[in-house]
Parts: sequence; structure tokens; C-alpha cells
Amino acid sequence: MSYTTPIRDMMFVMTELAGLDTVADLAGYADVTRETTQAILEEGAKFCGEVLAPLNVTGDRNPSQWHDGEVNASPGFKEAFAQFVEGGWQGLMHPAEYGGQDLPKLLAAPCLEMLKSANLSFATCPSLTDGAIEALLLAGSAAQRAQYLPKLISGEWTGTMNLTEPQAGSDLAMLRARAEPAEDGAYRIFGTKIFITWGEHDMAPNIVHLVLARTPDAPAGVKGISLFLVPKFLPNADGSPGARNDVQCVSIEHKLGLKASPTAVLQFGDAGGATGFLIGEENRGLEYMFVMMNAARFAVGMQGIAIAERAYQKAAAYARERVQSRPVDGSSDGPVPIIRHPDVKRMLATMRALTESARALAYVAASHFDLARRHPDESLRARHGAIYDYLVPIVKGWSTELSLEVTSLGVQVHGGMGFIEETGAAQYYRDARILPIYEGTTAIQANDLIGRKTVRDGGAVARQMLARIDDTLAELKARAAADSNPAFTAMHRHLLAGRMAMENAIDFMLRHVKSDPNAAFAGGVPYLKLSGIVLCGWQMARALLTSATREAEDPSFYGAKIATAHFYATHILPQTSAFEASIVSARGNEGVLALDDAQF
Amino acid sequence: MSYTTPIRDMMFVMTELAGLDTVADLAGYADVTRETTQAILEEGAKFCGEVLAPLNVTGDRNPSQWHDGEVNASPGFKEAFAQFVEGGWQGLMHPAEYGGQDLPKLLAAPCLEMLKSANLSFATCPSLTDGAIEALLLAGSAAQRAQYLPKLISGEWTGTMNLTEPQAGSDLAMLRARAEPAEDGAYRIFGTKIFITWGEHDMAPNIVHLVLARTPDAPAGVKGISLFLVPKFLPNADGSPGARNDVQCVSIEHKLGLKASPTAVLQFGDAGGATGFLIGEENRGLEYMFVMMNAARFAVGMQGIAIAERAYQKAAAYARERVQSRPVDGSSDGPVPIIRHPDVKRMLATMRALTESARALAYVAASHFDLARRHPDESLRARHGAIYDYLVPIVKGWSTELSLEVTSLGVQVHGGMGFIEETGAAQYYRDARILPIYEGTTAIQANDLIGRKTVRDGGAVARQMLARIDDTLAELKARAAADSNPAFTAMHRHLLAGRMAMENAIDFMLRHVKSDPNAAFAGGVPYLKLSGIVLCGWQMARALLTSATREAEDPSFYGAKIATAHFYATHILPQTSAFEASIVSARGNEGVLALDDAQF
Repeated sequence: MSYTTPIRDMMFVMTELAGLDTVADLAGYADVTRETTQAILEEGAKFCGEVLAPLNVTGDRNPSQWHDGEVNASPGFKEAFAQFVEGGWQGLMHPAEYGGQDLPKLLAAPCLEMLKSANLSFATCPSLTDGAIEALLLAGSAAQRAQYLPKLISGEWTGTMNLTEPQAGSDLAMLRARAEPAEDGAYRIFGTKIFITWGEHDMAPNIVHLVLARTPDAPAGVKGISLFLVPKFLPNADGSPGARNDVQCVSIEHKLGLKASPTAVLQFGDAGGATGFLIGEENRGLEYMFVMMNAARFAVGMQGIAIAERAYQKAAAYARERVQSRPVDGSSDGPVPIIRHPDVKRMLATMRALTESARALAYVAASHFDLARRHPDESLRARHGAIYDYLVPIVKGWSTELSLEVTSLGVQVHGGMGFIEETGAAQYYRDARILPIYEGTTAIQANDLIGRKTVRDGGAVARQMLARIDDTLAELKARAAADSNPAFTAMHRHLLAGRMAMENAIDFMLRHVKSDPNAAFAGGVPYLKLSGIVLCGWQMARALLTSATREAEDPSFYGAKIATAHFYATHILPQTSAFEASIVSARGNEGVLALDDAQF
Repeated sequence: MSYTTPIRDMMFVMTELAGLDTVADLAGYADVTRETTQAILEEGAKFCGEVLAPLNVTGDRNPSQWHDGEVNASPGFKEAFAQFVEGGWQGLMHPAEYGGQDLPKLLAAPCLEMLKSANLSFATCPSLTDGAIEALLLAGSAAQRAQYLPKLISGEWTGTMNLTEPQAGSDLAMLRARAEPAEDGAYRIFGTKIFITWGEHDMAPNIVHLVLARTPDAPAGVKGISLFLVPKFLPNADGSPGARNDVQCVSIEHKLGLKASPTAVLQFGDAGGATGFLIGEENRGLEYMFVMMNAARFAVGMQGIAIAERAYQKAAAYARERVQSRPVDGSSDGPVPIIRHPDVKRMLATMRALTESARALAYVAASHFDLARRHPDESLRARHGAIYDYLVPIVKGWSTELSLEVTSLGVQVHGGMGFIEETGAAQYYRDARILPIYEGTTAIQANDLIGRKTVRDGGAVARQMLARIDDTLAELKARAAADSNPAFTAMHRHLLAGRMAMENAIDFMLRHVKSDPNAAFAGGVPYLKLSGIVLCGWQMARALLTSATREAEDPSFYGAKIATAHFYATHILPQTSAFEASIVSARGNEGVLALDDAQF
């Protein structure tokens, strides 16, 4: 098997760190017992391991193909997608009202993760459909919901998000696509959209494009953008796909990775205008998009974790098999599996520590989302919602940045074989490279973290996180006094140092964002990474405390957790001081900003 | 022009940091004036920019092709190679006695760099020829030198290095290729060699393979390996290529990058034995190889710097062109070139600081090489030789590791366009990934740095480097007291902290390498990176001092140097504390080594 779902660790995180039992107590989640959860993960793992994982390399070697406006998905994808629909996976966390299973995000998170680990190119398709579903749930009319949601939630039809244009990437203010009102109450859509994931394909009989465009009298900039639904085939009265709409896929991109996932250039309106239906109100498109984006960004963060997990599994398997060189401690006269060499262990431990800690933070975020939706206490709902919103740019930014390091180490563990495409490690390195870019680059996440998530509430939520870390630090200190395991002392020392660095960074942002915005935003990505390392380290500290208590129950699993947490403390957490130095030194336009444009 | 040789910075490093004038005073280098040096760089830059650089993307899109045992180089490569030979570039630093130009390594270094920046796949071919030349100069018989060196040094014939076999990569003790003595005084060579760069091609009429193999009675392990010369065509009496030798290219690899550079599987002896000629003495092959390897490893370090430079140039050019989003400081109402956004500046400054500092350290190492060869004082020759040997694993390991970060940032600066192959940024990201692997992985470099370069002399050379850094720190301190530029204070503070971390790491290695080798070697790569950051930072400190003195002569150039050094101090040097923590915490088998093989 090229991928084995890490169900044991997923269950550990869900139950011990992310409060599965608390989530199960929320209204409507009574079925979410540990047993059902385990059963769902096992069923998903079977599908992912047996059906999707083997197609991952197939898709890389046989990318989706464009031909005369049509796109054929990679071999085997159409059949696998039919099984995906059949299994009801698309509806996992969507409302039962429209045919979904209405499960909490905390349970959807590991399911998302395993899909993405098994086959990231494949998994981007249902992710985009999730985005379209969220948009319709948020702002669609009752008729739109009734017409489209059952088809999308069943997975029968797929969805896309059409934001980017050649001149408008991170900057949606520059968007030019036009929407002209027509006499039938619909709109005629004109324009070119690029980077449209699964924008055209043959896995589903219809594709529902969500498109940002401007109406004729819209204000300039981001306040004049509306959201439209543009189906590839206009539905007949009976719901079946009818007339072909005026949207054409003119090409797909030749990419570094994710080659099975077609990235389309879509041309709207070349034959008189594509028929589009306004979603919600005019000029509120960007607002709807931002709500959806939190879901999409969380999902991309999960992609980073998922690809890191798969790269780790492959590297660990190779390191156990490949025999080369005698051990430096003289414990064998002959060559040994390379996993016994200290540097290989260091690389694998780095991959593992980064991946597990990011998984923990992401699942914890998912549980805040569930509590924000369904907690009986309104003020607690708001509080959990604020924490989730705060964590989203960190989960997106940090989990995808670390996936670059993990997939790179995955190649390195393979030595020269890692550079040969047939080995497979290189695919993860290539695939991962888009993750810190799409759905908002790491800098865009950092801007969000600074502006909307740290400064807007005066640092209130950020400081709440520090207070929670302090609780864990107190537990660590008590435990370190009573227990000879040096992991507690090490974790206490390095988490404390990291937390202090994070507080200094928060204070820096609050003090300077207005008075010296260049300095603040020059430190944005370091601030995001610092926050990611500390918050993930906090999860590792929590894992350490729990695991030490339970070690006797399963010495190998909990022992590995303890060792990984210890490694995280001594190898990952110390990086925070460098980020703090970067942030603080940007003050006064030193360093980063001193070079003028022409000097580069 | 897709690549512009950074002649100004090269000349700055050569003259101000690496002592070009001192090198020119050595015997035989009287012609190496600043003027000739500049003229040679300009001529090289013309060839690299106009001929080689445009073929870089051609080669990536049209890899070398294998067909029935023959390999056709990518389109245009054969013609470019003819121009390379015509220009005499292969002989740059080789002896005049065999037709070379006998220039110092300090001058060869920038020439190597520009070749590799312009077209890394192309440049690997002459690099391997350099290796074959070094081997023959070191251990070839007078007859072998007379027969092969003029052909290799002119560039007419090319060379290869045949070390790796499927079961013997980093571990050459496992090598199995056989060499049987024949009655004609030659040997018959049998075996399979893999990963042979430019092992077969059509750019030259003959290829001289240097092959490691075992004679029948050789001792087991690395002490029973001999070095053989196996020409593709056995030379006729008149020196022209004669009978085809029994070595066949059975395939070439499908790789992540460096696609124009054919990586061959060579089969020796399937038709009765390839004719090989012993170089030097039997069983001393690995010893010769190690001498050569210092040259090859330096050259691969230059590859890291070269690809980083090219990725930087491309990213800076894009950032100046691409218009997107308003500046955070409100200095414009409309969108601006992205180079004006603080995070883009941070990324470009990181790319630039890493690249320039690594260039400086590599050229300084080259000048130690020249002094080690030709200084009139024997004890100083030895001293410079020891410093060069110490610096080689750092130049190789650190310059290639940083090339991963720089090429990755190069993609990130391009946003979504970076993931599209046609943009070109992705090629550098792919090409660079082999650099920390071939010619010895970073862990192998770290083992060399610890074992042969730090511990063997009891830390003498490593501590000499600290003493030199202390001299620079004293200068910085004096300057900081007299000058209001905060760069001096910042550099003093962070270089001092880095230097202390480096000293602790050296002491750790000396104390633990024997008593706890696992702990020492688990900290090997962090020790190498820490040393790289500090030693490169030291060069930036020296550049800062010189540039501040000369600023008035060329305010833009020296001002940029000062700002880059300042950035290095506050953004790169602070990383050393995390590496120190990693190294020291490996003691007592904590962290890295606590997980047993089965727990991964």
C-alpha cells in the first residue's frame, strides 16, 4: 500500500486534543461516538488506500488532457470519482436537508486529510465543490438551493470558483469580468478567468461555476464585485443538464505539479454571453467569498498536512529498506538500514514532528468551528468562532509552508533515487509547491492574521491563546517537578521561550501596524510562522502530557508521541527566536526595507 | 537577457574580500591584474548570456534523448559546446604544460559560477571533465597524462566519474565492479555503474570514463578499490579515437530536473570486458577520489550559488514588472509593482543575502586554495590548505541547502504564475533539488566537517576561523562607536551571538564525537548549517566594513551592500541559536534518537 491512513494518530488527536466527546454533545451530533468515528475513518481509509492512492502516480504521469475545449481526466479518475459519489463522501459535513450527512467538521477533517494524502489532484475537485456548496448555503436563494444543492452535495455535479483573471490575482480590485442584466432576470457574463481548478472535465455531467464579475453600474474596486452562478449546462425543468452555456475551456496549464488536476482558462461570453444567476445581492460578492474562503483556506491547510504525511510515510519506508554504510556508533560491522543513521533519523523526526503537530492544530481548529456553530451558549459560540477565524490563516499558512520542508526532506532521505521521477518522492515535492500560493499566498494569510485577526480586536483572541498556553505551561512545570523524563523540562523551557516571542510579536503588530505599516507587514510572514510553531508546539505539549499519563496503555504509540514532542521542543520551537528577531528588526525601515526597488 | 552575470559583485568579492591582489602576487599569476580579470569575466559573461542562457529552458523542455545506446544532447547543446571548446574555457585553471591557461582558482570561480547560472545542465559536463583532469594530474602516469590531458584540457574530449552502483551510493565499501588484469598490461572491466553524469552523449568524439573497480585479490571494503581509465574509444597511435570499447549506455534517467544533462546507466564488459588502464597504484582509488572530490564538491557548491543567483534575478525582474495591490503604507491610490510590498521585499532580500554571502565565502575559499598551492612559505601553504579543506564541506553543503530556499522563494515571488512551467521559475526549483544530494549529501558533508575537518586536528582550524571572526568583531565594535549607521551595531550583536553558538558547537563535537557518536552526528547537519551561516555572515560583516568606507565612490552599489549585510545580520544570523539548541540537545540520545526504527 503506498499510503496507510494514520487512523491511530487521527483518533488520538480527535479524542485527546480536539475534544471529540465535547463536539459529540452538541445538538445533532449524538451519533458521533468514538466507535462510529473509528468506523467512518476505517471505511474512508479503505477507499483512499485501495482506490485513490494508486491513481496518484498514474495521474502525475498521465495528466488531464485538453482537446477541443473538452478535458479528459487522467486514466481511472472518472471511475474513482463515481465510487466517491457512490460512497457519499461529498456530503460528509453538509446539511441532511439537502442529502448530506451533517457530520461535524472535526470528523470531516481527517476524512479530508486522507483523501488529500491519497490523491491530492483528485481531492481538489470535491474541495472546490465544497466551496460552491458553502456559497449557496450562505447566500443562495431558496430556489437556487433547491435546484443545485442536492446535485452538488451528492457529488453528482461538481463546482468551481472563478476569481482570478490575468491582471487580478491577489488583487481582486482589478477584476474586469462583466455581468449584464438580461430581460429574463438572469445576467450575461463576459470575461476570461484563469487558474480555475477542475474548470472543465469529464467526471461529472455538469459543472457549476461560481464567478465573480462586475455589473454595469458597480462601484470601482472590491466593493463593486458580485457573485454569479454559471452552470456549464443550464438545468432543464426536471433538473437534468440542458442547453450548453456560453463558457468554454480554451486551454489548461502545464504545471510543476498537481498534474492530474486540470487548471483551466475559461472564456465566458464569446458567443453572446454566458447565462449567469446572481447569488445574494449585487456588490456583495467579495463578502460572500471571504466567508467561503475561511473554509477553503482550512481545506488547503489540510492539503499541506496530507502531503507531508504521505511524504513522511514514503521516506520512512525507504529508510527502513535501504541498506548503506556502517553505523557511527560501531554497533554493526556491516552496513545497516539507513534509518539507523542519526541524520536520517533527524530528518524523519523533523518530518514527523511537523506533520503531527500541524494535524493537531488543524483538528483543534475544526472543533472550534463546530462549537462556534452549535454550542448552546451564544457568547461561547462567538468566542469559539473568533478563535477559529484566528487559527485559519495559521493553519493555511503554516501547514502549507511546512509541507515544502517536509516534502524536500522526503527527497533528501531517498538520496540520488529521490531525484529520479519513478521513485515518487519528487512528485510530492512538486505537488506541494502550489499550496503556499493558492487560496491566498502565505503573505496574504499573514496580512489577514495581522489585520483582521490580531489588530482588529486589539489582540484579544491572540492573547487568549497565550493564556491557554500558560495553562499548559503550568501543567508542564508541575509535571517536570514530579517526573524525571527530561521531555517535560525541555518542553517547558522551549514552549515558554516561544510563547514570549509570540507575545512580543503580537505587541509589535499592535504598536506598529498603524504608525509604521511597512515594518509590521514586513514581519508578517515571520509572525505567521512564529505563531504556527508556537501553537503547534502547544499541541505537542498537550500531547506530551496526555501521553505520559497513558504510556502504560500502549507504550510504543505513546512513547513515540513523547519522543516526537521532545524532538519538537528541542529542534522546532527554538526557531521562534529568529522569527522574533526578524519581526522586531523591521522597525525603522531597517533591513528589509532599506533597499530601494532599483537596487534589487 | 534571461541572465546577466553579476560582474560588479564578483569583482567586489574578488578584490575586497578574497584578496585578488595577493593571489596575483603568487608565482605565475603576474598577468592576473584587475583589468585582465574584468576582461575575462566580461568575455565569459557574453558567451554565457548570449549562447548558454537561452539554451537553459530549451534543454529543460527537450531533454537529452537515449536511442539504441546513443544519447543526443538537447537541441543547440552540441553547437554551444563547440563554442565552449573554441573559447578555451575548459582549460581555465589547468596547467599550461598541457594547453591550459593556468589561472588561479579565484578567477576560475566566477567563471564557473556564470557557466552554471547560465545553464546548469550544460555546465555539469565540463565539471566532470575537470574531475577527470584532476585525477590524471594527481595519479596518472606520464604516458597517460601526455595521451589524455591535452584532449581533456582543450575540451575536445569529455570526462566522467563512475563511482555509484545500485547497491553502493554513499557507501562505496559495497562497490562490486571488477577489474581483471589482462596480458597486455591493461585490465578488463565488468560491472554496472549508475548516475553517470554525461556518461554518454554526442557533443564530443570521445569520452574518458574514470571508473572505480576491484581487482581480483583486493581487500574487502574501501581499501580494495582501484581507479581505472576507460575511454569510450581506445585512442589510436596518432591520438584519434579508435576501436569502440566494451562500455554501453543502457539507459538514461527520467529526472526531476537537470533534464538536459543525461544521467546514464553504464554497462561495462558485457562483450568480454571493457579495456581499462590502472591510474596510479592498485587499491588507492578511493584516496585519489577523495582528493578530486574536494574540487568536485567546491564546484557543486558553486552550482548552488549559481542557481540561486539566477532564481533571484528572475524573481526581482518579475517583481518589478507585476502590478498588483495598493501599498500598505497608503503611498499610492492604485496598484503598484509588487516589489513595493514589504513581504516581496523580504523574500527578495533573503534570496539576495543568502546568495551574495555564499558567493563571498566560496571565493574566499578559492583564494585559500591558490595560496595553498603557490605561497612561497611552506608553513603558510599548509595553513591555507587546511583552511580550504575545512571550508569545502561548508561551501558544498550550505550553498546547496540555501539554493533550495532561494529557488523556492523564487517560485513564491511569482505567485500562481510560479507554478506554471512556462514561467521558468519552477525549473530552478526542480534543478536545484539534486545539489544537496550529489557529490555527497549534506549529511556526508557534515560527517566530513566533523570527522576530518574539526576533530582530527583537535579543532585547530575551526578555532582559527573563530579568531578571524573576532578580529572582524573588534573592527565592527570600533566602527559602531564612531558611526551612527545601525548596521554596525546589529551586525556586531548578531555575528557575536552566531560566533558563540559556533564555538559551543565545535566544543560539543570535540567532546562527544568519541564518547557519544550518535549525538555528535545527529547534530552534524545543524553544525554544518550553523557554520555556514556564521562564516557567510562574517563575509557580510567584512563587506559591510569595506562598503561603508567606500560608499561615496558608488552610493547605489555600496549602499545596497550595506543594506544587504544589515538584513543578513537581523534575518539570517539569528537562525544560529536554533541550530545550537538542536546540536546540544542531541546529547544523551534525547529527541532525535529516542524513537526506535519501528516507531517511525
